[in-house]
Amino acid sequence: MEQIFSYERLLSFTEKIFKAIGCSEEDACTAATALLCADLRGIDSHGVARLVGYIRLWQAKRANPTPSIRIIHETPSTAVIDGDAGLGLVVAPYAMQTAIEKASKVGTGWVSVQNSNHFGIAAYHAMKAIPYDMIGIAMTNASALVAPTFSVERLLGTNPICVAIPAGKEPPFVADLATTTAANGKLEILQRKNQLAPEGWIQDKDGHISTNPHELKAGGALLPLGGDREHGSHKGYALGAIVDIFSAILSGANYGPWVPPFPAYVAMPTDMPGKGIGHFFGAMRIDAFRPASDFKNNMDRWIERFRTAKPAMEHEKVLIPGDPEREMDAIRRLHGIPLLHAVVEDLIYLGETFKVIL
Amino acid sequence: MEQIFSYERLLSFTEKIFKAIGCSEEDACTAATALLCADLRGIDSHGVARLVGYIRLWQAKRANPTPSIRIIHETPSTAVIDGDAGLGLVVAPYAMQTAIEKASKVGTGWVSVQNSNHFGIAAYHAMKAIPYDMIGIAMTNASALVAPTFSVERLLGTNPICVAIPAGKEPPFVADLATTTAANGKLEILQRKNQLAPEGWIQDKDGHISTNPHELKAGGALLPLGGDREHGSHKGYALGAIVDIFSAILSGANYGPWVPPFPAYVAMPTDMPGKGIGHFFGAMRIDAFRPASDFKNNMDRWIERFRTAKPAMEHEKVLIPGDPEREMDAIRRLHGIPLLHAVVEDLIYLGETFKVIL
Repeated sequence: MEQIFSYERLLSFTEKIFKAIGCSEEDACTAATALLCADLRGIDSHGVARLVGYIRLWQAKRANPTPSIRIIHETPSTAVIDGDAGLGLVVAPYAMQTAIEKASKVGTGWVSVQNSNHFGIAAYHAMKAIPYDMIGIAMTNASALVAPTFSVERLLGTNPICVAIPAGKEPPFVADLATTTAANGKLEILQRKNQLAPEGWIQDKDGHISTNPHELKAGGALLPLGGDREHGSHKGYALGAIVDIFSAILSGANYGPWVPPFPAYVAMPTDMPGKGIGHFFGAMRIDAFRPASDFKNNMDRWIERFRTAKPAMEHEKVLIPGDPEREMDAIRRLHGIPLLHAVVEDLIYLGETFKVIL
Repeated sequence: MEQIFSYERLLSFTEKIFKAIGCSEEDACTAATALLCADLRGIDSHGVARLVGYIRLWQAKRANPTPSIRIIHETPSTAVIDGDAGLGLVVAPYAMQTAIEKASKVGTGWVSVQNSNHFGIAAYHAMKAIPYDMIGIAMTNASALVAPTFSVERLLGTNPICVAIPAGKEPPFVADLATTTAANGKLEILQRKNQLAPEGWIQDKDGHISTNPHELKAGGALLPLGGDREHGSHKGYALGAIVDIFSAILSGANYGPWVPPFPAYVAMPTDMPGKGIGHFFGAMRIDAFRPASDFKNNMDRWIERFRTAKPAMEHEKVLIPGDPEREMDAIRRLHGIPLLHAVVEDLIYLGETFKVIL
């Protein structure tokens, strides 16, 4: 059961909800735009479906609607930002802008963030660099759902990495990937449909391969990209670990099993080593390396060569990272965003609570 | 059939061989140390086993023993280096040192390299940052053996990424990973033993899963980390692509299917868009983010927590990236490096050719 809403309608609604919890006009607009970017790009698990989750973080006094976001340490090319427990949807754009400003001065900018909350999809933030002719990088840690290779304990989040790279005539290259075999959102879809998961996505509480999509509730775990050791899961584990360290140990946020959970009803970890969750952002000015026009011409050639590669029989064509999301974005801006009935109900509940019309 | 050689003996021999082809004393020492680092760490496919390959590149006039390595463009935090067709084993240390020097001045340093050759293992270069209390990053593109998701054509190299991160009492975190399910070296081992490869490592010329380790000779390809689309191969493809773009499109080297092959007898691609192969290096000063002691204390806590995680029944313990290689390094420095008979024969041949005693 789905219902279709226009982008503008959902954006306006989301903005009003954020204003209702005390966000400034500007922050509410920033947060709503960042959140809705996920719906536009087809990452339904990270869009308005999560709005009620963000509001519950505010209700639990874990998300501060009027944060005083500030740089607590910096060099010409780096900064550490304290998000003051603000919404990641507001803290992350501030941090990415800081990275871009540093890059415009000294070639690159690198910003690690503590004391933040979930920031939506990494691609939204990384893509901010594109109009400046910069490469954008965004990553974040998240609460532990993933077992490192050989572990039965969940110690890492799905810890995504996004790298957005401008091209010339071609659209930008935008790779946004959870460092797991499958993002948690895909598992949630199987849970709703009660379908089995492919082998290599999850393990049970004893570390054995499982295809039960409900395994996480029974102490199971998502698996790092690769799935098992023979297929390179130690690489997915390492990538997730790098995201954790860059996001949280460089900044002073929580890491590993101590990252605060997104659902406000889940108890906080004890003996936490830092503040909030952590993010990491980078911006690299193309012309800090070579003239942007040369770079873009070569990116176009790269993209064209890959896009026209001979596909395997059963596939239509080879995709460039970002292609499916960009196509979805165009469709949904035009034809609207389909929301599951349960999500619509959540929005109606929020609307009633805050006297906002959906 | 293996024969054991001391590290010192192989280092001295390799150094003399590099001097014999015209390298300066200093460059020969640099190149030999970088190459042997692979043997010490147990990455046998990338160590002295490849010495004859490097020498053949020189014979084919593709490797310049007396390169004039220079910075052709820079900003406070970035540089592009022209390796002048030098050995990657010499060009890469120069570039990594440049990244470290920039980081010491403005917090981070990022160097893209054109006109180079293969640089050995990425870990050797990334780890150079550790003694400076910096995070080190190294990556390189390589000739195309990997098919992007849905492609039957080979368009990417195994394109490794290494991130080396200092800790306090604990040894550093060193993740060095090819962006494929399995490194080509592992496939070579199966070829020698005539054993089947696990599903998910390779595909045949039509893009179908294969377990034949000789498939690459018949037009097959290595698969990106993830193996197939259902298990996230589009993520491994994206990671390999990012390495290609950072290493070669930022620098002006060759990329994608145009990267020159390592074996000197393989014909060069036509219509090449750049110069040589490309690398990318980064150095981030820890105290550009927070005091190094705070960072290291937290790294120790991270490492300890992960190392003591409850392992799955059939496994002894959870490993930290870099653990196996560091243990191998300690063993081989003490007890020597075992070389396959075929490798020893290559070294003897080189010794005879250049009048150097093994």
